Amino acid sequence: RSGSSSSITISYSATPTEEMNGAGNLMDFLDEPLPDVGTYEDFHTIDWLREKSRDTDRHRKITNRSKESIWEFVKSLLDAWSGWVVMLLIGLLSGTLAGVIDLAVDWMTDLKEGVCLSAFWYSHEQCCWTSNETTFADRDKCPQWQKWAELMTGHTESAGAYVLNYFLYVLWALFFSFLAVSLVRVFAPYACGSGIPEIKTILSGFIIRGYLGKWTLLIKTVTLVLAVSSGLSLGKEGPLVHVACCCGNLFCSLFSKYSKNEGKRREVLSAAAAAGVSVAFGAPIGGVLFSLEEVSYYFPLKTLWRSFFAALVAAFTLRSINPFGNNRLVLFYVEYHTPWYMAELVPFILLGVFGGLWGTLFIRGNIAWCRRRKTTQLGKYPVLEVIVVTGITAILAFPNPYTRRSTSELISELFNDCGALESSQLCDYINNPNMSRPEDDIPDRPAGPGVYMALWQLALALIFKIVITIFTFGMKIPSGLFIPSMAVGAIAGRIVGIAVEQMAYHHHDWIIFKNWCRPGADCVTPGLYAMVGAAACLGGVTRMTVSLVVIMFELTGGLEYIVPLMAAAVTSKWVADAFGKEGIYEAHIRLNGYPYLDQDEFTHRTLATDVMRPRRNEPPLSVLTQDSTTVEDVETLIKETDYNGFPVVVSRESERLIGFVQRRDLILAIKNARQKQDGVVSNSVVYFTEDAPQLPASNPQPLKLRRILNLSPFTVTDHTPMETVVDIFRKLGLRQCLVTRSGRLLGIITKKDVLRHMAQMMNQDPESIMFN
Amino acid sequence: RSGSSSSITISYSATPTEEMNGAGNLMDFLDEPLPDVGTYEDFHTIDWLREKSRDTDRHRKITNRSKESIWEFVKSLLDAWSGWVVMLLIGLLSGTLAGVIDLAVDWMTDLKEGVCLSAFWYSHEQCCWTSNETTFADRDKCPQWQKWAELMTGHTESAGAYVLNYFLYVLWALFFSFLAVSLVRVFAPYACGSGIPEIKTILSGFIIRGYLGKWTLLIKTVTLVLAVSSGLSLGKEGPLVHVACCCGNLFCSLFSKYSKNEGKRREVLSAAAAAGVSVAFGAPIGGVLFSLEEVSYYFPLKTLWRSFFAALVAAFTLRSINPFGNNRLVLFYVEYHTPWYMAELVPFILLGVFGGLWGTLFIRGNIAWCRRRKTTQLGKYPVLEVIVVTGITAILAFPNPYTRRSTSELISELFNDCGALESSQLCDYINNPNMSRPEDDIPDRPAGPGVYMALWQLALALIFKIVITIFTFGMKIPSGLFIPSMAVGAIAGRIVGIAVEQMAYHHHDWIIFKNWCRPGADCVTPGLYAMVGAAACLGGVTRMTVSLVVIMFELTGGLEYIVPLMAAAVTSKWVADAFGKEGIYEAHIRLNGYPYLDQDEFTHRTLATDVMRPRRNEPPLSVLTQDSTTVEDVETLIKETDYNGFPVVVSRESERLIGFVQRRDLILAIKNARQKQDGVVSNSVVYFTEDAPQLPASNPQPLKLRRILNLSPFTVTDHTPMETVVDIFRKLGLRQCLVTRSGRLLGIITKKDVLRHMAQMMNQDPESIMFN
Repeated sequence: RSGSSSSITISYSATPTEEMNGAGNLMDFLDEPLPDVGTYEDFHTIDWLREKSRDTDRHRKITNRSKESIWEFVKSLLDAWSGWVVMLLIGLLSGTLAGVIDLAVDWMTDLKEGVCLSAFWYSHEQCCWTSNETTFADRDKCPQWQKWAELMTGHTESAGAYVLNYFLYVLWALFFSFLAVSLVRVFAPYACGSGIPEIKTILSGFIIRGYLGKWTLLIKTVTLVLAVSSGLSLGKEGPLVHVACCCGNLFCSLFSKYSKNEGKRREVLSAAAAAGVSVAFGAPIGGVLFSLEEVSYYFPLKTLWRSFFAALVAAFTLRSINPFGNNRLVLFYVEYHTPWYMAELVPFILLGVFGGLWGTLFIRGNIAWCRRRKTTQLGKYPVLEVIVVTGITAILAFPNPYTRRSTSELISELFNDCGALESSQLCDYINNPNMSRPEDDIPDRPAGPGVYMALWQLALALIFKIVITIFTFGMKIPSGLFIPSMAVGAIAGRIVGIAVEQMAYHHHDWIIFKNWCRPGADCVTPGLYAMVGAAACLGGVTRMTVSLVVIMFELTGGLEYIVPLMAAAVTSKWVADAFGKEGIYEAHIRLNGYPYLDQDEFTHRTLATDVMRPRRNEPPLSVLTQDSTTVEDVETLIKETDYNGFPVVVSRESERLIGFVQRRDLILAIKNARQKQDGVVSNSVVYFTEDAPQLPASNPQPLKLRRILNLSPFTVTDHTPMETVVDIFRKLGLRQCLVTRSGRLLGIITKKDVLRHMAQMMNQDPESIMFN
Repeated sequence: RSGSSSSITISYSATPTEEMNGAGNLMDFLDEPLPDVGTYEDFHTIDWLREKSRDTDRHRKITNRSKESIWEFVKSLLDAWSGWVVMLLIGLLSGTLAGVIDLAVDWMTDLKEGVCLSAFWYSHEQCCWTSNETTFADRDKCPQWQKWAELMTGHTESAGAYVLNYFLYVLWALFFSFLAVSLVRVFAPYACGSGIPEIKTILSGFIIRGYLGKWTLLIKTVTLVLAVSSGLSLGKEGPLVHVACCCGNLFCSLFSKYSKNEGKRREVLSAAAAAGVSVAFGAPIGGVLFSLEEVSYYFPLKTLWRSFFAALVAAFTLRSINPFGNNRLVLFYVEYHTPWYMAELVPFILLGVFGGLWGTLFIRGNIAWCRRRKTTQLGKYPVLEVIVVTGITAILAFPNPYTRRSTSELISELFNDCGALESSQLCDYINNPNMSRPEDDIPDRPAGPGVYMALWQLALALIFKIVITIFTFGMKIPSGLFIPSMAVGAIAGRIVGIAVEQMAYHHHDWIIFKNWCRPGADCVTPGLYAMVGAAACLGGVTRMTVSLVVIMFELTGGLEYIVPLMAAAVTSKWVADAFGKEGIYEAHIRLNGYPYLDQDEFTHRTLATDVMRPRRNEPPLSVLTQDSTTVEDVETLIKETDYNGFPVVVSRESERLIGFVQRRDLILAIKNARQKQDGVVSNSVVYFTEDAPQLPASNPQPLKLRRILNLSPFTVTDHTPMETVVDIFRKLGLRQCLVTRSGRLLGIITKKDVLRHMAQMMNQDPESIMFN
């Protein structure tokens, strides 16, 4: 062995320079003298390996040049730092936008009910901050804040005032939503929806031009405020991820490193998605995990670290804007004072089951409705649809105090534990007169009439939210479903929580309560149930797991309550998965036919040969030969087929593969040659070899196209199991893969073929995959 | 288009059954009737794709069978649940072990100084809990706890007592460490070191039999207690990861799903690593991220979720054992009351620079020392080495109160903010007599003599720790470096913190302090500096980023201090990276020559053809032909070469590849055939085709070996850039890859070739990669 290893060393030391020269020649196709060669068309899939290779090449050039002069060295340092600069900018801008959106939504939501006389741009809360009233109950009714009816007629309590308020509430809601849908329709159609399905698709390597553009950013920000303020059952969390990704795309254009490389750009976008969730919930770690778990496709460790940085900058920017006025980072800050008990796991798991069922119901209902929208007349009147849904929402929401206010406020109240000074109806417990403890530690008490009233209203709100959310998500306005899902769960959880609390209070001699619930003790926290329910419902809809628990953990800030949250999240995922593996985002991706290769394992026993084209009875594969095709042949091939690329073989007889050429590059190269290169005519021979073929003197000048030939096309044998092929496509991010048998080219498998095959194997409609 | 797509649908619906049959034949090599075919030898690399394919096959069988009977359905459910069961068991066992280790270390560390008279198995703290003394200062000196000198001679303060205590302290330390190293030597040599480099290697797909065995688990647990108690400069965190992975491996053997599949086993081990860090620091989320960032190689989302579960169970098991007696999950619980100020970022970044320099110094020094140990006589006397280092450590540590106690206690004290009732020397500030505020909010005060004394002792402790840790890590006892690294950083941080605090107090009119530090305010928290320093030093040594910050965040539990921690961690990583990209674990992996393909990007401009074997001047590739090699030829080939496998070609002339066969499988198959199959003699023809070749009647019966042939070997063209090849090896976990040019087999690239090439390109010694 030692002999052979020393010979290896010798051959090593002899090779480098010689090999480097060889490599230089072989790789000159990367030099790209032709404009646009190596870019992609809209609605096409990128080739991750090629993008990575191009970036390595760029990096290598900069490193080599940096040794030449100090200026080049500084430039290389700037290049190395540009990633961090982009992250900083994304964090700053998305944090700022989130703050502005929060402030605007607060103000406009309150505008539906009334106006602040001291300064019309104040929200209800801001208006009454400066008020002299001291108790919480009175502070809500400070004189500076006037409801519309009061302002117009002077009355506050009459039936007429109620009707007028009702009418104006509906009117404002219709106005906001009309404005939102019109802006989306006219200026940026891509600004609608939550954006997460599309971002997942884009991050997996698909091109949708304009989806993350400047117009989308502007319009989505504005219409998001309008949509949320209109009181529709939607949230701002998903759209904030879209907004942050638009910011990421915007800042990519500052640096050619990112703007010219679709692979590097996606690294930035992954980080931007993390920043988006970070500002949506004030949960930077949860945001990073959300990006990792839910949206990202290619997530190297370097991106993890940068995402974390962007998420932190965004969170701190938001905190310094301080839109909630409480110096808190998180959206729903809660503090509980009582531990939970083992027996409570039963209701928590029941909430998990509810969450799973809700997830299934929502996904099925929403997808059915969206499919109907796509296929029937309904889809032709998006503005009318939004108006009608807003009208119904506003009319049904106003009479119920739990649906009238904004959904985040509702969730916040449901999460909260009842303190001694709480004025909320939900905290209308009957106090024991001889109790005089500090406000923190309040024992369980019997529920008063207000609580029972609230329970009825919450039950109605629950039904209303469940139904209306199914119809709202997917309309042509920005709409997230985190908040509505959480609201459904929080309402259900709070109802269950109060039920358990009252049961424990009235029956503390029951065997299950005996151990942990003495009379006069504080044993059940209904707010915790609301939180667990919210986690369960969100989990059922999105199928998030770790990121969901971490986001919730960052809200409470204590490890104490992780176990209930996890129990509910796990149950909800299992129950929902039993009815269908897809989360709402995957379902929408499939509905829209985006070419997204999800992370599920492919377990069917098929081989590459079953999937590759051409199939039996189909014409043979369209190939080019290395030195005998003419320009005219190539042009005919391009005209008659719509394949994205063609394999190049030594000859049609031997079928031995030498490379692969992209359709787009071929068109550009021939067009360019025809324009600029003398002697290239229709019957010029196109050759891909190093040296020109030996041709009769009468032949026109041949055209060398080796530069656009990919000499390392990816191949698998026809016996390769499809699970391996799927794995390769997923992990390496391929566009296509050639199939060979004993060295002969047999066929080709594209990403579309893989997706179609997977859909077919799962008995889904294979024709729904629309794009290449 | 619609015409062609409908024809696709037809051909789809026609194919499945027919293709399934075909697939059944083609894939029968997966049925493994031969024992041991498809397993690996010790110190060999696994083939991830094959493992995955085997698991999919197993899964498919179970799913198919589950439809047959209820019993099979229940079995399939149990199989699906086994992953969660394993996680639960890992969490329970590793949590319990961590608790036992903590308790034992506490007791034995104190045993070096004295004994509890009321119950000898009590540690100092437990002994004095029941004491009647009320102040903190007196509680330390409760009468039940007696130092050795006091117990033996009755004196407490005399010089003789000091000498006796000193002597017994050293003696106990020597005894513990001698016991530890002897146990490791005799029973489980793999129990030494931190184990993380080896676990990284194993997780990347390498087989080291016995490294995670039962003996290793038992001996590592026992000797870890002894090693930590002996007062050596080492921690228990790394070894706890190893212990948790041993637990994982142990529970894998309960389920054939995991014990028979090296790929699935590694999923469990990744989760076990997360559980290990989770119990080491009480940081479940940090543990999962550590596993993701630092140790794991293949980390699908399913593993993320399960890791989180295991980490949580482990953390809660540890908490219910409650070894620290404070109901806290975390090792160093801290609560600070003052925010930090922008100007403080300067010292924080300086601490980051210090951490980076320490990391570089430690890695270089430790690697140089370990290399010396490997290559010189030193390595032959591991017991003596441990004894000598322990002796030096104990002799130098005893006089200094900051090194005498356990390192975790030291770190804990350094992290803590000084309260009003603190008895520590570090909190010996001069109190303003007319100050009568509650204990929480104490303004900056001038340092008293105790603080200055403490500073000198800390400076000495710092130098001592820096030097001794370099020599300690890598000895033949369990040794982690998290705690010593953190100690170095915490000492440096606390010194800097006190310096800044005193500067701010005495010079609060300086322009930098003017804005944020009024006299009488609490503006600087020296404990925070200690924490930032600890993060910086740990980051410099391990190059952890996100997981480091998250672990530290889980210790403090507030987002408030993430920015200082991040600033220090980033600076430390940049500074350390400037001197060398490798963290300590990668450096040890390289020192030991493990075949680990790290995540760094390969940026050199070489091609597959430059790396593949055979090279120029070497004999041609050893191949088998599909139907013309005899048994004797194969046996000669096996005897004369030591390759791990051989490509199979159609014929030597055409060089067209049809598959790849593993050496081990070939040996087993021929041995088996010779024993069991009649008519197989030395000149029987071996064939890999579907049908037997046409042979003259006189020939002996041919041997069909298609079953062991891998029909989908991985190929790349000779023009493929090495960066792509490295990417493919890393992402798909290949053992080898064949190189072709226009359909002809040219050569082979193994993982070893890739590693050697990478090492050569980075100007490292390529011969250090020892294993296959």
